[in-house]
Amino acid sequence: MAQTLIIVRLELDHEQASFGDVAGAISQAGGDITSIDVISSGKGSSIRDITVDTGDQEEATVVQALRKLQGVKLINVSDRTFLMHLGGKIAIEPTLPIRNRDDLSQVYTPGVAKVCAAIHESQSKAYSLTIKRNTVAVITDGTAVLGLGDIGPYAAAPVMEGKAMLFKQLAGVDAFPICLDTTDSEEIIRTIKAVSPIFGGINLEDISSPRCFEIERRLAEELDIPVFHDDQHGTAVVVTAGLINALKVVGKEMNEVRVVVSGVGAAGVCICKMLLAAGVTKLVPVDKEGAIVNGGKYDHPMWQWLAEQPQVEKQPGSLQEVLRGADVFIGVSTGGLLTGDHIKTMNERPIVFALANPVPEVKPEEALAHAAVVATGRSDYPNQINNVLVFPGVFRGALDCRAKEINEPMKLAAAEAIASAVSDMERNEQYIIPSIFNDHVVPLVRKAIVQAAIATKVARRIPPDFR
Amino acid sequence: MAQTLIIVRLELDHEQASFGDVAGAISQAGGDITSIDVISSGKGSSIRDITVDTGDQEEATVVQALRKLQGVKLINVSDRTFLMHLGGKIAIEPTLPIRNRDDLSQVYTPGVAKVCAAIHESQSKAYSLTIKRNTVAVITDGTAVLGLGDIGPYAAAPVMEGKAMLFKQLAGVDAFPICLDTTDSEEIIRTIKAVSPIFGGINLEDISSPRCFEIERRLAEELDIPVFHDDQHGTAVVVTAGLINALKVVGKEMNEVRVVVSGVGAAGVCICKMLLAAGVTKLVPVDKEGAIVNGGKYDHPMWQWLAEQPQVEKQPGSLQEVLRGADVFIGVSTGGLLTGDHIKTMNERPIVFALANPVPEVKPEEALAHAAVVATGRSDYPNQINNVLVFPGVFRGALDCRAKEINEPMKLAAAEAIASAVSDMERNEQYIIPSIFNDHVVPLVRKAIVQAAIATKVARRIPPDFR
Repeated sequence: MAQTLIIVRLELDHEQASFGDVAGAISQAGGDITSIDVISSGKGSSIRDITVDTGDQEEATVVQALRKLQGVKLINVSDRTFLMHLGGKIAIEPTLPIRNRDDLSQVYTPGVAKVCAAIHESQSKAYSLTIKRNTVAVITDGTAVLGLGDIGPYAAAPVMEGKAMLFKQLAGVDAFPICLDTTDSEEIIRTIKAVSPIFGGINLEDISSPRCFEIERRLAEELDIPVFHDDQHGTAVVVTAGLINALKVVGKEMNEVRVVVSGVGAAGVCICKMLLAAGVTKLVPVDKEGAIVNGGKYDHPMWQWLAEQPQVEKQPGSLQEVLRGADVFIGVSTGGLLTGDHIKTMNERPIVFALANPVPEVKPEEALAHAAVVATGRSDYPNQINNVLVFPGVFRGALDCRAKEINEPMKLAAAEAIASAVSDMERNEQYIIPSIFNDHVVPLVRKAIVQAAIATKVARRIPPDFR
Repeated sequence: MAQTLIIVRLELDHEQASFGDVAGAISQAGGDITSIDVISSGKGSSIRDITVDTGDQEEATVVQALRKLQGVKLINVSDRTFLMHLGGKIAIEPTLPIRNRDDLSQVYTPGVAKVCAAIHESQSKAYSLTIKRNTVAVITDGTAVLGLGDIGPYAAAPVMEGKAMLFKQLAGVDAFPICLDTTDSEEIIRTIKAVSPIFGGINLEDISSPRCFEIERRLAEELDIPVFHDDQHGTAVVVTAGLINALKVVGKEMNEVRVVVSGVGAAGVCICKMLLAAGVTKLVPVDKEGAIVNGGKYDHPMWQWLAEQPQVEKQPGSLQEVLRGADVFIGVSTGGLLTGDHIKTMNERPIVFALANPVPEVKPEEALAHAAVVATGRSDYPNQINNVLVFPGVFRGALDCRAKEINEPMKLAAAEAIASAVSDMERNEQYIIPSIFNDHVVPLVRKAIVQAAIATKVARRIPPDFR
């Protein structure tokens, strides 16, 4: 039985109703009281928070039953999800206590002055003497948040805070959410540059396409700390990791397979770029209007770039048409574009990554009837392609070696590291990608990132375990 | 005996030197080993961190002795102040753990979507469902840091982090340091507005005069969260608090005394404004070129404003000239401007606040020979005027009532609250201002701020304890 907790705050008029009435009504509606907190109690009335397990019942059933009671005023109803977000999900804590005047004079004036002076003399000391060495900004403009779209900077904050939690818990990275009250690319670039000194890295998040490309490109060029747009690169890295293992399962090679990528927005473009870097030789990017073809002319600068790549096919066609004979389908588009019959037209033992969320491009059950490996973005099917596997380890590694950037070799190394977390013994159709709770992933990704950063000469520090 | 700890990291060549040699050298140089950590140990050499109490000796004595040893390579020497700053002084922590997939689906996708949607529907919910309700930005451009001046955003960070520590420890406020890589007023204003959505308040810090006035004024106008330039208002509030009590000690009234304010930068202007609001009727602001006089013409907009106030005196003169017959001297200028003889020319039982740091405008010993009450910005004399008494309680109150601004009545109420932390019984020449470790200060300031915010209709929420 599913447990769904809600917390009901109600005011009880003691002349008209007793707590017994409330308990009875909850019970009759199928709910189960798990705790009671008296918030305030007066002569005539009292306010209580009652936690109710609504069990299999709809939350509304219990709430309706309480609404009907005479002498009971419902002040508020919270479900568990809202309660977990109440007051925000991160806190800023001193790393040491200020116990007395002596401590104060060390961490603040006058002692802090010599620390400031040391950094003023040699700016790179900011890495050892401030939070810069472990701190990342999670920055959004709120224009492409989850499936919700352009909901603005205020509404985007819970996602950014959730990301900051994951950064700390999974990789020990201090991450602070910044939600920008502007959607102008130039102003976003200027703002991020202006706030960058305290940060060791910039994680861009949920910025809509095509602005995200220019914003990331410019920041990467103009800042000397790594900039990583997770929607693009996080997704591309984890898709590549999944594909590496899926190809092993079906016994095909990266440089032989024909790959159709559906959806050529932020994630799709980046997946295409990364697959080319990984060795794919037959690529068909497809958007709403059909395949992007070699030699075509496109307004979108990234589409134009794709059209100029020799690995991109010349043959136009709809998604359904180009899918025929493909070895790999990667969907980062919208739900319900394909049926099992379309999958049937693919090459033998095809691989299907239907990553649209919450509704995949093709129903996993239908795809499984014809495909050898099926992956989705959802946690209720096997093979969840989740970029939570990527960003913690990528930034852990980038911070540890003070990387100036996160370049293509580093991303490819991260993909291979994630793939390697599933051993040859373990790998099968149902298990091509590790769980986000797999403790080996972050250390493996970190190591790959540091090694690739050193190899490509963008590391400004060799971490002790690499010396 | 003073305890001065240093930590020496050294590499010992086992063929040439033993640890006994190292210990001997330290001991002979007057140092005392308090702990040893072996960082790495190989066949031929080892690396150790040795914590040494250098006692009364100069740190250099011990370090020199070690440098002379054959087979010992000094890798690094850190003193305790630097060690306290190592890696930064704040961390960002999740407020709850993500233990399993169910937790993840609540704090992150897909559950977070409904929290985002709720804020998108009603923006004010950002206060309950994100960190906004308890989070303040500590923002500087690094142009006027401590006595160091324009040291830039990187070198300013340790001060901002220290401030964030104090915010949390003293008032439970989550504060995040933002160090701006721009000194252009318009760009600073734009940047702060752009990053404001996640914050419940903005604490401006160490921005040079006169830009700080315009930046703060514009932000206060254009943002709906409180903006507080601590160098101006924090100082003005604590000076006013000190003056309220000092006047009680000498038995004079605010509306009778003649006050000379030396230094008309960010702090000085704001002190003048606040003293006028507090009832001062005879005011002489003085800068390097002498008194700012009623009816004068000035380029600096705030000086012009002062010249238009009827309480500002008409008589020009140097600091030494105008000081004659004054009841109160407040210095926020530079050290060593005055001698005891100048103080002697003041009215009977004068009050001297010599707040220049680290060297006060007049030596406290000389001032004390002629003044009834002497205060400084230093912790090694009685009556330290420290704005650490102000900002924690001010923002605690402003956040708790979701104040739109921090207005003059709120600041005056805060000054009175700080003054009230010293009771009639306790108050004397040596004790006009509470210690920053006095636990009553923050709750008193908070209460005053909330009450004044409600009274001036800038509170958007009545905290439970004020209902």
